[in-house]
Amino acid sequence: MSNSFGKIFKITTFGESHGQVIGVVIDGCPSNVEITDNEINLELKKRKAFSKSFVSKRDEKEKAKIVSGVFEGKTTGAPICILIENTDIKSKNYDKIQNLLRPSHANFTYLQKYKIFDHRGASRASARETASRVCASVLATKILKKENIQVFAYVKAIGDIEANVDLKDLKNIDKSSIFCPDIEAEKKMLQRLKKIEDEKDSIGGVVEFVILNTPDGLGDPIYEKLNAKLANALMSIPATRGFEIGDGFEAAKKTGSSRNDTYILKNGKIQTKTNNEGGILAGISTGMPIIGRVAFKPTPTIAKTQKTLDIYGNEKILSFSNDGRFDLCVAIRASIVVKAMCSLVLVDSYLLNFLQKKDLQMKRDYLSEKMSMRDEKTKNKS
Amino acid sequence: MSNSFGKIFKITTFGESHGQVIGVVIDGCPSNVEITDNEINLELKKRKAFSKSFVSKRDEKEKAKIVSGVFEGKTTGAPICILIENTDIKSKNYDKIQNLLRPSHANFTYLQKYKIFDHRGASRASARETASRVCASVLATKILKKENIQVFAYVKAIGDIEANVDLKDLKNIDKSSIFCPDIEAEKKMLQRLKKIEDEKDSIGGVVEFVILNTPDGLGDPIYEKLNAKLANALMSIPATRGFEIGDGFEAAKKTGSSRNDTYILKNGKIQTKTNNEGGILAGISTGMPIIGRVAFKPTPTIAKTQKTLDIYGNEKILSFSNDGRFDLCVAIRASIVVKAMCSLVLVDSYLLNFLQKKDLQMKRDYLSEKMSMRDEKTKNKS
Amino acid sequence: MSNSFGKIFKITTFGESHGQVIGVVIDGCPSNVEITDNEINLELKKRKAFSKSFVSKRDEKEKAKIVSGVFEGKTTGAPICILIENTDIKSKNYDKIQNLLRPSHANFTYLQKYKIFDHRGASRASARETASRVCASVLATKILKKENIQVFAYVKAIGDIEANVDLKDLKNIDKSSIFCPDIEAEKKMLQRLKKIEDEKDSIGGVVEFVILNTPDGLGDPIYEKLNAKLANALMSIPATRGFEIGDGFEAAKKTGSSRNDTYILKNGKIQTKTNNEGGILAGISTGMPIIGRVAFKPTPTIAKTQKTLDIYGNEKILSFSNDGRFDLCVAIRASIVVKAMCSLVLVDSYLLNFLQKKDLQMKRDYLSEKMSMRDEKTKNKS
Amino acid sequence: MSNSFGKIFKITTFGESHGQVIGVVIDGCPSNVEITDNEINLELKKRKAFSKSFVSKRDEKEKAKIVSGVFEGKTTGAPICILIENTDIKSKNYDKIQNLLRPSHANFTYLQKYKIFDHRGASRASARETASRVCASVLATKILKKENIQVFAYVKAIGDIEANVDLKDLKNIDKSSIFCPDIEAEKKMLQRLKKIEDEKDSIGGVVEFVILNTPDGLGDPIYEKLNAKLANALMSIPATRGFEIGDGFEAAKKTGSSRNDTYILKNGKIQTKTNNEGGILAGISTGMPIIGRVAFKPTPTIAKTQKTLDIYGNEKILSFSNDGRFDLCVAIRASIVVKAMCSLVLVDSYLLNFLQKKDLQMKRDYLSEKMSMRDEKTKNKS
Repeated sequence: MSNSFGKIFKITTFGESHGQVIGVVIDGCPSNVEITDNEINLELKKRKAFSKSFVSKRDEKEKAKIVSGVFEGKTTGAPICILIENTDIKSKNYDKIQNLLRPSHANFTYLQKYKIFDHRGASRASARETASRVCASVLATKILKKENIQVFAYVKAIGDIEANVDLKDLKNIDKSSIFCPDIEAEKKMLQRLKKIEDEKDSIGGVVEFVILNTPDGLGDPIYEKLNAKLANALMSIPATRGFEIGDGFEAAKKTGSSRNDTYILKNGKIQTKTNNEGGILAGISTGMPIIGRVAFKPTPTIAKTQKTLDIYGNEKILSFSNDGRFDLCVAIRASIVVKAMCSLVLVDSYLLNFLQKKDLQMKRDYLSEKMSMRDEKTKNKS
Repeated sequence: MSNSFGKIFKITTFGESHGQVIGVVIDGCPSNVEITDNEINLELKKRKAFSKSFVSKRDEKEKAKIVSGVFEGKTTGAPICILIENTDIKSKNYDKIQNLLRPSHANFTYLQKYKIFDHRGASRASARETASRVCASVLATKILKKENIQVFAYVKAIGDIEANVDLKDLKNIDKSSIFCPDIEAEKKMLQRLKKIEDEKDSIGGVVEFVILNTPDGLGDPIYEKLNAKLANALMSIPATRGFEIGDGFEAAKKTGSSRNDTYILKNGKIQTKTNNEGGILAGISTGMPIIGRVAFKPTPTIAKTQKTLDIYGNEKILSFSNDGRFDLCVAIRASIVVKAMCSLVLVDSYLLNFLQKKDLQMKRDYLSEKMSMRDEKTKNKS
Repeated sequence: MSNSFGKIFKITTFGESHGQVIGVVIDGCPSNVEITDNEINLELKKRKAFSKSFVSKRDEKEKAKIVSGVFEGKTTGAPICILIENTDIKSKNYDKIQNLLRPSHANFTYLQKYKIFDHRGASRASARETASRVCASVLATKILKKENIQVFAYVKAIGDIEANVDLKDLKNIDKSSIFCPDIEAEKKMLQRLKKIEDEKDSIGGVVEFVILNTPDGLGDPIYEKLNAKLANALMSIPATRGFEIGDGFEAAKKTGSSRNDTYILKNGKIQTKTNNEGGILAGISTGMPIIGRVAFKPTPTIAKTQKTLDIYGNEKILSFSNDGRFDLCVAIRASIVVKAMCSLVLVDSYLLNFLQKKDLQMKRDYLSEKMSMRDEKTKNKS
Repeated sequence: MSNSFGKIFKITTFGESHGQVIGVVIDGCPSNVEITDNEINLELKKRKAFSKSFVSKRDEKEKAKIVSGVFEGKTTGAPICILIENTDIKSKNYDKIQNLLRPSHANFTYLQKYKIFDHRGASRASARETASRVCASVLATKILKKENIQVFAYVKAIGDIEANVDLKDLKNIDKSSIFCPDIEAEKKMLQRLKKIEDEKDSIGGVVEFVILNTPDGLGDPIYEKLNAKLANALMSIPATRGFEIGDGFEAAKKTGSSRNDTYILKNGKIQTKTNNEGGILAGISTGMPIIGRVAFKPTPTIAKTQKTLDIYGNEKILSFSNDGRFDLCVAIRASIVVKAMCSLVLVDSYLLNFLQKKDLQMKRDYLSEKMSMRDEKTKNKS
């Protein structure tokens, strides 16, 4: 039950890093959405775009294949299963460390919880599981696109190097090999990554997400606030340690009078002057850009040797053959997953909200309606 | 559906700030748990402990009353409904601002979503709803106590004033009028609050939570990781803007070699030397203290006048009669709610985990078992 | 968790038969639905309409009161709590039987499951809980009425006396004191009930439900078929023993060639000539009337004395003071509850289906569209 | 979302009858359960055991394959995906009927709901989907077996021929080619099936299920009563029209005094003399055998030609090439699915109940405890 996500547009993922396949079942996708294997594989490729230099060198020849729920290129309303066969697996690398506890790694807690652990490639705890989420997000994105909703995510920081990214830079994210559209910062980040690689170490990072053209009204009080759902979704990504919406932890240092988002009229619509709330107020989208951040810890698996214990309590040395099959900075590839999870939250909230608006039978939003009432009145007077 | 929380120990809250009652239904509480109205009212009182000086001056004569699910002082397995009548309501104060958009406040998004808003006291969006959560948490706490699991939360920061709190200080939280057990920091915080009050303003803050004696194995990969559930629960509290587990956003600046929690033998048990992970690894509790933080924005409602628009788009001045019915720093009272939500997450995870361990029919945890196997072997040799 | 029903329009009930209150929280009701206490109380009254002669003589002065979620006569999108105070309780009647096992009654299984039982009036296992469902159904009915969907239920059989009821008789259901619109059958039923009362016994019965004007497309394959949801909903009513949709168990005796519902053109629409499927095909509504039946066992509580055991295994005589506080035939009052549960299933399926149709952006149903394409073509030719 | 079943032991099925694969993901299965592909394939074979003579002649060379969640022969707690490739598909047979409405068949409602239908072999509406359920049930059965819980299902009736089956006959179910352990009835049924085949027709039937050694306490009031869950599960099987628990519709004809199950002492345990309730009282298992029935309509797809309409409203003749790829009596093969769904309901209820009993920390059941208290007392006196 813990392998499913979403209420209306619901995904269930399965498969181990070194098993036969990984995959996802999407249940609740509307019918007649056009989709091809190719569209999914294009997005999947981004997850390993950087792999030549600084991320896991496993050659994930990802060939995602839709095996159900699509007929003549369109979804039918039936559950959509997408499978990816696992290839280029070198499970033997893991045999020698089978009984070692890996510091800050999943095998300790999995063993304690389940009394059994498929040690090869970290199995379900591997970031490989997130490829399934990316597959599902491609369908979500297609539905959101109809409403012009756009989801972006990029590397905001690596270590203490922070990028400055404007809305206008969002179109350049995919041009950067590390998904950082601030060219200055990107340069410094690449230098730092080189140094980390030389030191056989890893480093943490921050991913920022931006969602444009969100309609107002998404998200549900009290326990399914849009920010709470995003927090839940993003903290479910491996290696995440923190979540912020809007000004996040900075908000804790501010006063109400300096921070409140003032209402103004702009293009004949009531909007806020600033966007400290990051597009979500009381758990419901305001229509302003949704913006937030996720902190990633440094990958626990490093090329450097580490002291540890085996499962019997004996002192041991943990050492990986340095074949580079791990990420120097997990935040880079994770940016694709952050985008995927945001899309999944948004499509679910969008479909749910649509339903809730149903009985209102109102064509315009509440405030536009009120304003036009005023204008009507004024016109009548004159 | 968005007013329910939890999977096994499930709460559903209802009621508006200025309605007749607020309340909660708890479904899934085990039978034969002893509980009285009085125990609930004791915890509720803390939510307004500070009210004399710096928080909302509404005299919430909270008299929580259990009206179902308890027979002769014990839970019966039936749903437990707890009601609190609303008293000391001054709804008229809100009539004059009925058509004003309140900056950074819920009424904008509620109107856009629902096309109707009970403006009196912010109704469901009011922090008053959290009293229902506190009621439910008292039952959760009783179940956790049987296993010696203890949940704490305290004010970690107000504005830029930060407290230093050790595990040994946890017993002093309730002794502080602002739930900050660092006496030095508390003093500075009180001065700052006085200043904020004089300026008719509000200020943000950070609440830290600590959970002791958690068994290992709580939380479920992939989408119901314990940290993801905590993030979801805590970001559902009004005014929250950020969440961290363990070293949180600091982790993004560190390297793997310096940050990984090394395994050591301590008291004959395998533990970690450091606790950067904050007691949760790969979404599952390690048995170390669970620690994290939540950022609260400054209360949007302030005594100072603010420029705004009405729902028709006309420019207006928003001004509350300064009767002090709002919080200078919402983080103070919210610390009780942070504790409550942590308890609700823990009890749910605990009950779920218990079930999952069932079929293993093993008396000890996995690693203790393995170590004893080694010791047995050694003994046999000698 | 077992006290909630519905996915989008979700109810949670609470309260014991002899506790302070019973009630329901409705979560997910669209905003701006007009509702008053009075409308709810009118429907509640029907549940005890027959009480003067043959059903429980407890004078349930039901005064249902909406205590949240409604503002100025309209729903706000917030959870709606409805409370009914328990009055005219004679709990002492139950004290003397506290330790007796009541044949075919809940107290055996509740004790085994929960190790504690509030014996007064059967508490949660009492049919009194169903009053909460009736309250919730009034809101469901209001939403369905907008779409002209109408739900009916009536007494189809008492013992071996069976009624013949046509669609045209549905308007007369409430005119019968036992909700049986076949006057001939009603007469015989009343005679039988008199006899059963004289014998201090009880008798079983069958309730039939009919739902008119259902749009096609409601219900979801595979596990949430409309018939499966109805079966689940109706078998959750106390004392139910069987469920049928369409021709039910009779279908098992038929051949395909004689039973299949043939398609015909009627009023320019494709419909079925017969309706053996009872309006549901492959779990999805066809647009034809939905029709089915529920079997109720005789009330286990009877005025006649019965041999039994106490909880210690001692032989005892179970005897109620004959104050008539139990139903001669539970099916009579249960017909109101059958109607209520059908409404709750329908409103949930309706809201869900609305959402699913969303992305199709088609104005007419699929087959009407296809037929008009043909007509268009024909016209062009001539 | 409608393709998932279960709360703790949760299955999600996918795949079309004539697609590439069908499959199931099982989430929530405890770890360390031993399982092989072979065990699953043995049960799957039964679903087509009868295929040589009277059921669908499609040669389903079912090779179920576990592709995730199992490591070295044991479940790991990770989601278990089982895939079955579709073979021997003759989709072309369906092309000529693509635009015909098939009487009492899914294609009408699927088209109306989804505006698209994969017509080949009825896709998701095909009984083929139930093979996925059978796969999942093999794991459920393994868990139930540890507690000695046994689930049986057999053909109780075909047309008006009814079998008499005793508990002692249950071991012979698999010996019958039509899963009917009453040899006399089986003979008549086979004759009737021959006649139906000659007439190019189909016929309905009834399946009865029996569950032995159920512990008391399974099932949850109010909306998750064990009978309501069984009704829901079994009515989700294609072609079902009715459900009964215990004496079912017969109960409606009985009086309370003649029907109530009297309590007696048997083998030192409190039990009921009769079992009219069918092992479930107030929605909770009593510990007596659980018994009930499901009615199946005749397969709508028959070899005989039928008049119908096409989707444009034109009159057409529907005629299948008589290659026998459909069931004469769907109840025969469905008996395996009834057994599977009962197992899935039971394992879910069992795991949930285990959790609920947890906090009671009582070693024996409530009534055994009370009786021993009495015996203790008696002993002390003497």
